[in-house]
Amino acid sequence: MSQPSRPFALAIDAMGGDAAPDVVIDGLELAAERHPDARFLLVGDEARVGGALARRKRAAKACSLRHAPDYIPGDMKPTAALRVRGSSMRVAIDAVAGGEASGIVSAGNTGALMALSKIVIKTMREIDRPALAAIGPSARGDVVLLDLGANVQCDARNLVEFAVMGDAFARAVLGLTNPSIGLLNVGSEELKGDDRVRAAAETLRDSHIGANFRGFVEGHDITAGTTDVIVTDGFTGNVALKTGEGALKLMRDLLRQVFTSSVPARLGYLLARPALDRLREWMDPRRYNGAILIGLNGVVVKSHGGTDALGFAHAVDVAMDMVTHGFNERIREGLTRLSTNGPRIAAESH
Amino acid sequence: MSQPSRPFALAIDAMGGDAAPDVVIDGLELAAERHPDARFLLVGDEARVGGALARRKRAAKACSLRHAPDYIPGDMKPTAALRVRGSSMRVAIDAVAGGEASGIVSAGNTGALMALSKIVIKTMREIDRPALAAIGPSARGDVVLLDLGANVQCDARNLVEFAVMGDAFARAVLGLTNPSIGLLNVGSEELKGDDRVRAAAETLRDSHIGANFRGFVEGHDITAGTTDVIVTDGFTGNVALKTGEGALKLMRDLLRQVFTSSVPARLGYLLARPALDRLREWMDPRRYNGAILIGLNGVVVKSHGGTDALGFAHAVDVAMDMVTHGFNERIREGLTRLSTNGPRIAAESH
Repeated sequence: MSQPSRPFALAIDAMGGDAAPDVVIDGLELAAERHPDARFLLVGDEARVGGALARRKRAAKACSLRHAPDYIPGDMKPTAALRVRGSSMRVAIDAVAGGEASGIVSAGNTGALMALSKIVIKTMREIDRPALAAIGPSARGDVVLLDLGANVQCDARNLVEFAVMGDAFARAVLGLTNPSIGLLNVGSEELKGDDRVRAAAETLRDSHIGANFRGFVEGHDITAGTTDVIVTDGFTGNVALKTGEGALKLMRDLLRQVFTSSVPARLGYLLARPALDRLREWMDPRRYNGAILIGLNGVVVKSHGGTDALGFAHAVDVAMDMVTHGFNERIREGLTRLSTNGPRIAAESH
Repeated sequence: MSQPSRPFALAIDAMGGDAAPDVVIDGLELAAERHPDARFLLVGDEARVGGALARRKRAAKACSLRHAPDYIPGDMKPTAALRVRGSSMRVAIDAVAGGEASGIVSAGNTGALMALSKIVIKTMREIDRPALAAIGPSARGDVVLLDLGANVQCDARNLVEFAVMGDAFARAVLGLTNPSIGLLNVGSEELKGDDRVRAAAETLRDSHIGANFRGFVEGHDITAGTTDVIVTDGFTGNVALKTGEGALKLMRDLLRQVFTSSVPARLGYLLARPALDRLREWMDPRRYNGAILIGLNGVVVKSHGGTDALGFAHAVDVAMDMVTHGFNERIREGLTRLSTNGPRIAAESH
């Protein structure tokens, strides 16, 4: 146990997401079954949350309810959200900052969650900037991609720190003992790309994770699963994630058209359905729900706002993995080794 | 006709690609049928090319053969390729630079083609840097994406010029009268992104193509076909293209597994096959073959090295569209209007 003194594993924003608080509480019902020893601090409007919670036995037992009179609407600007001191999101974040809980899961406003977390929970002393990470499917197992948009401009030092955080994340959440790491570039040759990625690659090669560093990878390596972790700046990572999702969505939409285009095609679908259902299940976005803001003094996981109970429970799983496997301690350790052994974090190469 | 005085529409590198010169000549046989009035300058080793050409009646009639004793291997560095003066690629490029042909199509070494073209054919006086563009499928028709890697670092001025070139390209090759244009970013709100994309967006809004400029688009908009043209820097564009291709490949591979996983699934495939074949045809990479280096004093199209005759003929189609629709004149006109009416090309915002 990495945080033995905290009364709660996680603080949960009961009011975030399209169907809050019901989906959140149904998700916690599943999470409580998977993590029977965990205690959650559920934060939201007592009148609205209390009734729903009472109907869910396991969730009710695992949760302590804390009242928060307000909530952050999905379209509120982060600057405005900062002023709503009584929001469920804010009260939950305050509980993490105050040491009551090791992390927060929220399906609410992404911009607000990122801004509030950075300001209240704060960035770890050891790193320059936090990053947004996610797990996605590939031909060779799950892949961790970061940064997904927390930093639209990154220098070589940021990329190196993202690699160290991605390494710790893959160990804690994917359970890998030696995750391989790639740096996203426009080609795999050493001379490709700009000064920034070349400087980051040089530092990583000489670092304690150098043995697992596979050098440059390209866009197609994300879904090929060439490495377990793929590191890039927030601009490129955000575009890559959404482009990949868009391409998969296009294929799904086209297949739906194919299988409803004629009577034989419909019949064909019915025959192939068990196998197609396994594929659908394997790629189920709920299995990959949860964008993780890493590098703060606490675990912060953003669940998709439109997910269901299963998806929300998965986001809780990710946060629980990070808490119970001492994710932040792993990062601290990695960064300490980096600054001890790796002399050249080329922060000047922008 | 935009280039009435040139004896050849295109110079063709007969020796480029995995199965050269046969695939090139078979491709020209198809191209000659589609463009009966076009004359091609076919460049390659006379002994090897001559015999194959003699067996293809239409191609033989449409082509003049010019001897080039050497060729550029696929793995040769651009710097080395520059020194091979007698290569088929170089002799073809020299023909464009010398005014004999309006453009070149090659399935050879990409880096060499880009470097040689930039140095010999040269960048148009009106622009700062050429860009690499391609056409891809989307839910709402073909989409033009640029830059795909010619410039890993771009400033706002480059992005603005890419938009003007993308506009001209969509008019010439997709036949659109008012192509819509989007600038790739991490969100669609005006304040998202870095100084560079915000400065480029501001310039485009005030420019002559402002009415067709839809502001910021995101990664998923590429396959959604939200706009006809999507503009980005070469680093992001290269990663986005390869990520999208990778995601589509993953889906194809998984579907192949699905449809061979059981006897009912195999039967299902057979029943749905006509509809699946239409989908395959629609997404056929050969239909989208051809990466176009735009912004030079001549048309330069790179065919995929592993394509077949149909794919090569498609790359020739793209080049022919650019030549016959006065692509470079359209760019010049657009850039002149930009510098006359749009005062702020914020070149300083990197």
